[in-house]
Amino acid sequence: MTVQDYIRDGAAIYARSFSIIRAEADLARFTPEEERVAVRIIHACGMVEIARDIIMSLTFARSAASALAGGAPILCDSMMVADGITRARLPAKNSVICTLRDPSVPEIAASIGNTRTAAAMELWKPHMAGSVVVVGNAPTALFRLLELMNAGAPKPAAVIGMPVGFVGAIESKEALAADGRVPFAIVRGRKGGSAMAAAAVNALASEAE
Amino acid sequence: MTVQDYIRDGAAIYARSFSIIRAEADLARFTPEEERVAVRIIHACGMVEIARDIIMSLTFARSAASALAGGAPILCDSMMVADGITRARLPAKNSVICTLRDPSVPEIAASIGNTRTAAAMELWKPHMAGSVVVVGNAPTALFRLLELMNAGAPKPAAVIGMPVGFVGAIESKEALAADGRVPFAIVRGRKGGSAMAAAAVNALASEAE
Repeated sequence: MTVQDYIRDGAAIYARSFSIIRAEADLARFTPEEERVAVRIIHACGMVEIARDIIMSLTFARSAASALAGGAPILCDSMMVADGITRARLPAKNSVICTLRDPSVPEIAASIGNTRTAAAMELWKPHMAGSVVVVGNAPTALFRLLELMNAGAPKPAAVIGMPVGFVGAIESKEALAADGRVPFAIVRGRKGGSAMAAAAVNALASEAE
Repeated sequence: MTVQDYIRDGAAIYARSFSIIRAEADLARFTPEEERVAVRIIHACGMVEIARDIIMSLTFARSAASALAGGAPILCDSMMVADGITRARLPAKNSVICTLRDPSVPEIAASIGNTRTAAAMELWKPHMAGSVVVVGNAPTALFRLLELMNAGAPKPAAVIGMPVGFVGAIESKEALAADGRVPFAIVRGRKGGSAMAAAAVNALASEAE
């Protein structure tokens, strides 16, 4: 493939990518719904070996997909996650909500003594019941979600917990998985990110590839 | 680190992350300017081992940093890249431009027979001279950039070429590196993405950590 002969057709690029992923990745342990999620996560990061680090709770894929079909709002910890969600795939014109840039966030952050990302979640509360929560950036968002539920906040239908990094990412994902109150998908370890988290939503939103 | 005792101070999380990265990653071959770029790329993906795949041409870090200091526009192939760039770090209120959602893009894509991302770059032309081009998503954007330069388009000051994936990502990055007309940074192989590409911009925009 050179600058003369590269593939220029977006749909063909997707199809060829998914076919390479299915040929190379070990996806045998996933149900068909989970497999589509795993394929899109791999597609987002270029790593077939990430398959082994993707953990979905037993009811996650079905719960998330049916929440989306029923019109659940999608609560995102970062603008990058919100932008990675393909609106045309959403089954019920679902709202995609990111409150990080709300002008009240810095003041909330100071008052609760937490990051801006965690503070922005105070504004999620009216939308949380039955929502799909998507964390692709900040470990503090996952920790804060557990704190909010401890304090009686309504439960989401499913949580995609894929923060990335060196401080708290591993621990926050393990805490979500250990908690067990909500169906979840995580990528174990330091890896993760907004692209993987958004890819999981895109897979759950529609069976079309 | 549990839900009780996680670190809630954003600045402390950054500092601790960068310190872990510098302790674990092999960064010896980089200049101080390049090292900051590498550290932020690692921070964005959670993988210290990516250091070995980061290739910057000899003049890249200095050329990109001085273009940004001089007010160069930043041309992004995706909204996720544009959102990942921290505006407060930019040294000269630089414009961050992503033309992907311009209403003319689908028609241009049909007329040039290429992806929407490549088509959106037609709208970059008035801004290309001396710009910083940032590709975090689409291999076709890098291929198209080389085609545009072959056809006489003005040269950017630097190109951050970090598309991710299975079809064309490797080839487009190798083509950019082999081309040699513009200072470049790439992540070799299938890995890459909007978060890494935006992180490189954030590192070049300011020496503050």
